Amino acid sequence: MSGNTYGKLFSVTTAGESHGPGLVGIVDGCPPGLELCEADLQHDLDRRRPGTSRHTTQRREPDEVRILSGVFEGRTTGSPIALVIDNVDQRSKDYGKIAAQFRPGHADYTYHHKYGHRDYRGGGRSSARETAMRVAAGAIAKKWLREHHGTEVRGYLSQLGPIRPERLLWEAVDDNPFFCPDPDKLPELEAFMDALRKSGDSVGAKVTVVASGVPVGLGEPIFDRLDAELAHALMSINAVKGVEIGDGFACVEARGTEFRDELTPAGFLSNHAGGILGGISTGQDVVAHIALKPTSSIRLPGRSIDVDGVPCEVVTTGRHDPCVGIRATPIAEAMVALVLMDHALRQRAQNADVRVATPAIPGRVG
Amino acid sequence: MSGNTYGKLFSVTTAGESHGPGLVGIVDGCPPGLELCEADLQHDLDRRRPGTSRHTTQRREPDEVRILSGVFEGRTTGSPIALVIDNVDQRSKDYGKIAAQFRPGHADYTYHHKYGHRDYRGGGRSSARETAMRVAAGAIAKKWLREHHGTEVRGYLSQLGPIRPERLLWEAVDDNPFFCPDPDKLPELEAFMDALRKSGDSVGAKVTVVASGVPVGLGEPIFDRLDAELAHALMSINAVKGVEIGDGFACVEARGTEFRDELTPAGFLSNHAGGILGGISTGQDVVAHIALKPTSSIRLPGRSIDVDGVPCEVVTTGRHDPCVGIRATPIAEAMVALVLMDHALRQRAQNADVRVATPAIPGRVG
Amino acid sequence: MSGNTYGKLFSVTTAGESHGPGLVGIVDGCPPGLELCEADLQHDLDRRRPGTSRHTTQRREPDEVRILSGVFEGRTTGSPIALVIDNVDQRSKDYGKIAAQFRPGHADYTYHHKYGHRDYRGGGRSSARETAMRVAAGAIAKKWLREHHGTEVRGYLSQLGPIRPERLLWEAVDDNPFFCPDPDKLPELEAFMDALRKSGDSVGAKVTVVASGVPVGLGEPIFDRLDAELAHALMSINAVKGVEIGDGFACVEARGTEFRDELTPAGFLSNHAGGILGGISTGQDVVAHIALKPTSSIRLPGRSIDVDGVPCEVVTTGRHDPCVGIRATPIAEAMVALVLMDHALRQRAQNADVRVATPAIPGRVG
Amino acid sequence: MSGNTYGKLFSVTTAGESHGPGLVGIVDGCPPGLELCEADLQHDLDRRRPGTSRHTTQRREPDEVRILSGVFEGRTTGSPIALVIDNVDQRSKDYGKIAAQFRPGHADYTYHHKYGHRDYRGGGRSSARETAMRVAAGAIAKKWLREHHGTEVRGYLSQLGPIRPERLLWEAVDDNPFFCPDPDKLPELEAFMDALRKSGDSVGAKVTVVASGVPVGLGEPIFDRLDAELAHALMSINAVKGVEIGDGFACVEARGTEFRDELTPAGFLSNHAGGILGGISTGQDVVAHIALKPTSSIRLPGRSIDVDGVPCEVVTTGRHDPCVGIRATPIAEAMVALVLMDHALRQRAQNADVRVATPAIPGRVG
Repeated sequence: MSGNTYGKLFSVTTAGESHGPGLVGIVDGCPPGLELCEADLQHDLDRRRPGTSRHTTQRREPDEVRILSGVFEGRTTGSPIALVIDNVDQRSKDYGKIAAQFRPGHADYTYHHKYGHRDYRGGGRSSARETAMRVAAGAIAKKWLREHHGTEVRGYLSQLGPIRPERLLWEAVDDNPFFCPDPDKLPELEAFMDALRKSGDSVGAKVTVVASGVPVGLGEPIFDRLDAELAHALMSINAVKGVEIGDGFACVEARGTEFRDELTPAGFLSNHAGGILGGISTGQDVVAHIALKPTSSIRLPGRSIDVDGVPCEVVTTGRHDPCVGIRATPIAEAMVALVLMDHALRQRAQNADVRVATPAIPGRVG
Repeated sequence: MSGNTYGKLFSVTTAGESHGPGLVGIVDGCPPGLELCEADLQHDLDRRRPGTSRHTTQRREPDEVRILSGVFEGRTTGSPIALVIDNVDQRSKDYGKIAAQFRPGHADYTYHHKYGHRDYRGGGRSSARETAMRVAAGAIAKKWLREHHGTEVRGYLSQLGPIRPERLLWEAVDDNPFFCPDPDKLPELEAFMDALRKSGDSVGAKVTVVASGVPVGLGEPIFDRLDAELAHALMSINAVKGVEIGDGFACVEARGTEFRDELTPAGFLSNHAGGILGGISTGQDVVAHIALKPTSSIRLPGRSIDVDGVPCEVVTTGRHDPCVGIRATPIAEAMVALVLMDHALRQRAQNADVRVATPAIPGRVG
Repeated sequence: MSGNTYGKLFSVTTAGESHGPGLVGIVDGCPPGLELCEADLQHDLDRRRPGTSRHTTQRREPDEVRILSGVFEGRTTGSPIALVIDNVDQRSKDYGKIAAQFRPGHADYTYHHKYGHRDYRGGGRSSARETAMRVAAGAIAKKWLREHHGTEVRGYLSQLGPIRPERLLWEAVDDNPFFCPDPDKLPELEAFMDALRKSGDSVGAKVTVVASGVPVGLGEPIFDRLDAELAHALMSINAVKGVEIGDGFACVEARGTEFRDELTPAGFLSNHAGGILGGISTGQDVVAHIALKPTSSIRLPGRSIDVDGVPCEVVTTGRHDPCVGIRATPIAEAMVALVLMDHALRQRAQNADVRVATPAIPGRVG
Repeated sequence: MSGNTYGKLFSVTTAGESHGPGLVGIVDGCPPGLELCEADLQHDLDRRRPGTSRHTTQRREPDEVRILSGVFEGRTTGSPIALVIDNVDQRSKDYGKIAAQFRPGHADYTYHHKYGHRDYRGGGRSSARETAMRVAAGAIAKKWLREHHGTEVRGYLSQLGPIRPERLLWEAVDDNPFFCPDPDKLPELEAFMDALRKSGDSVGAKVTVVASGVPVGLGEPIFDRLDAELAHALMSINAVKGVEIGDGFACVEARGTEFRDELTPAGFLSNHAGGILGGISTGQDVVAHIALKPTSSIRLPGRSIDVDGVPCEVVTTGRHDPCVGIRATPIAEAMVALVLMDHALRQRAQNADVRVATPAIPGRVG
């Protein structure tokens, strides 16, 4: 258990590097009887895939997933589900000179000092390539949650550099390469990104994930509270530097009278809490935001050192995302789904016999 | 493992409610040979204790910890360390009418629906009382980290409502009940808090923790990255709604050229990353910020329902913190120490034989 | 998680040494709503207690357990349950000279080399004293299993030295200090043990545990199979050197036609398998046997070395069990109960929605 | 974590069924810098392979393993190692009629009731086919243990039905299909097995594993004692019904004076304990024995029921092992290696700073 497994009951273990033969994942703990096939996973993988617009990296990977076990006659058996995605478009020659240099802002330096021996091609294990397997596993969780609880997990770009969507139209999110929910912002985003790509620099982004139809009662106080686990899962995504639940850092200046979400028989009157109280889901939408740093893979030179400690200038060429956040949305959705899935099973484990006389109120009035 | 254990190698398991006889903790995995006695833990417990100023809750708990095992002739043996803190100042009559009502913004509603049967007195297990045991365990971690790596974990109030310290004087932090590092801000804070307490409302806060002297190489990609584990640990603290590492949400609008921390033989030139790259510590200061929501235990009435779903108005009386953040600093320090301790051991487990020819650079130049 | 926690969903973490102030345990994951009080645990603790006959150690510990959390108004809340048992009858002076010697057959030598610094009094953490806390936790599991599944976990002495019970009368088991199920063997056992105690030597024993009313479907292939977990739990008891499920080592010479348990609509026709097939419970009685080694705490001298590697002769005086197996029965029952409890919850987690058209057959015909 | 991961620090997660496309495994926590290639794993896989003599199943699988990640330029990187073994010789038509019947002595009945939906072909996930992946992972552990500690893990057949080797010649073990260490017994074994195969029946076996060069100090009391973990790991192998450490069940009738292993500066004088005291390795050879039941896949009919509860007679045809024990030796070695590997890392984690003045004594005199 050296950090490559996520989840206690519904767990995913992944392996695979940027330039290796492929990515491998094993999903363990999926309940039996769920209808499942490759197409169920491919949809989200396609949303994440590089090479689908001029705004994302130009590495062209089909990211076709194969299910090697755990499914029989179209339904899960309860046995572990093995997933494989082949890498086809590795271009090692783009990275050759990186072998001895530590790219600033990347994991080269830390992997070198932690492990001594690292696969430097394309960032090796530290590359965002591994997130493809998280998305595949998250798709299984999404399906089960939808079918068993009516839960939907959806994300969108809530900010790119200085640009903020002003409206939230879910149906617009998948119609553009940014996962932007406000069609009116697209020209501004396109122009901004084109200028950025030309400049060789990069910018950060913020992504928001909303899970609706989450049953009340998920989360295991005190250390495995639902918000703590969401923070863990989301912060584990490459480039994430901040996580908020509900109002997040806006809480700092808020008053208690403004912040608390009042309850009525018809439902909660607001959702400043982001759907979690005392570390347990309330039935309100679970809302999380992540901050993604600007990628350090840019064409503008930076100062660094090499493995011998000698100063050097590093310019990364080859294929890069000028804004990592562009592809983060499906990954963030996947991580949220994995957390909710794990906790749905944990809640069943301990509290299946709990009966309360009066049902939970709706997450939101109306 | 129902959520009450934190850590894989250096782990702490806690139990105890607000109005029960006491709090119990077991720390497992502490290396043998560490000199340890109650006084080593009591210092941080005293910093956390309620009833030490007019600005915090008026419940008066001595929070005296006793070590019941794992220490022999003044040094740890490697066997699990049992800790007990007695509750002495529970006032159940203050909470009696809460039994049937769900206080808005509190965990009453979610605990009711998750467990069916809850200890409502003082919030039961959901009360921040349990954090005393985290602080005790964190003190053990702090000591070991200091002695073995020269690591120091220190926190301070970085914002209370609209008030921000403008200077960071570590020596001032423990001289005031706010853990404020800027003595010039104390009059403003005192006045603000007095007005707040009179009004019956509450406000949020932001706390920052800095760990210096962290060795390079801590963190277990990809899921147990150091930042992900810090996020988990910090978000597990009551009232936390956001976690940032380094520049956090300021990344969203930053450019790659501004953000990346360049390397020179004399050290890193900046620390936007907050001391973590690729999920692994760099040797720079590890910097984390948390956002604490305003407490919902306020004297201004709020709308809610009772266990039968009948609308009611809830006014909480009794003893409360008008700003929960006032006491969060030692708790946040403790959680950071627990994470670093766990990862120091995990790094030893897998990578003890790693040798690199050129040593790590200093975290910061000069 | 340094080895002092057992169980994944229903877990018990223990601490405490033979001569420390007391034993502490935290049981996490107990479902809420279970009626629980100290008396429920005290019964099994009394069965285990030292000093209750001339055949067991003469250390007189009341082993009174106190519940410090997790129970409110007589029922569990789902929050962790803290248990404390005070040590009252430590006699350190009996052990003083052991400090520098390694008693052959004891853990002194290994604890010394593993930890460097050990609490040598009474064996410290390696003493069987810690099993009291396992028995307390196991009692909670037993109660829940009985109430929710009608499961009973009962053990008995199946062999002491050369003496074997020839009949199995459950009602006789608790009527003698040996947990012997055959009253006719008691005079022989008494005489044997008196002679043994006089001689200063010791002997081994075999204990059998039978769990009836175990629902079909417990166990998590492939590594956490029910039999593997039972083996782990039982082998973790001090002095255990062998574990068998069902026919155990008698399988080696058995034929397949003899061994397999045939199925009929009225139930299984035999139980060679010990109630487990493919690592999963069948509904038959789960049957496990353990071999306990003769204790090395005997009054006959043995050769050893001291901490400086100098040869010495070791004679242990003070209070000892001439047959460790005499007290193992309640401990073995407790471990089996903990395993079944943990797996009952794991089965609920993943397979709560499984419906099969035709019900399971009875464990046994008639 | 639904039971398909073994190990806490050096962990292996496996997936794959008897008749699926292949077996997949991910080994996480392997220290970096270990030279590793497919050939290192293939050797033990070939020892385990079916179809290599007339005495084992006639399914012909090449069991060629491919390493898909975690190795770069011939050495491990510390990143997870993905392994794949393709299934090529599945013959589904041999198993068609089993779909609705529960073969007595097999896991069909329990998988049906646990999961509701099972892959019945060849036993699906319950088939011993999955053990191939354990052997591959175990080979990595064996290599690291040998190179870092001089540890060797070797097994042999210690009994087949009524036949016992009378001598232990390690060099003979791999020269026959039985892993029998006594060449003089081969004619008897061959004759016995030929008769058995003709009769259509099966018999059990006992296998012994000896680990030499085990450093002192491995094992994590109290629940993750080395013997408890060995018992868990070995009992998790299909068909295992008993595990012994050292003298095992022979302890029951032994006296303390006979059993305890005395210590001298030149080494231990005996090894009744099997190399483990107080759950921690002593430096003596670690000795474990397992009892394997006779397979229930025999050509002699047995009574059973089908999924509708209707009585039927079951005769299994197709390819079977008349003695499962014939192939267990490499699997048992692998499990022992996995346990020792995991514990070698756990010992490093907590006790790397332990220094004792006088070194450990040799495991054995001379």
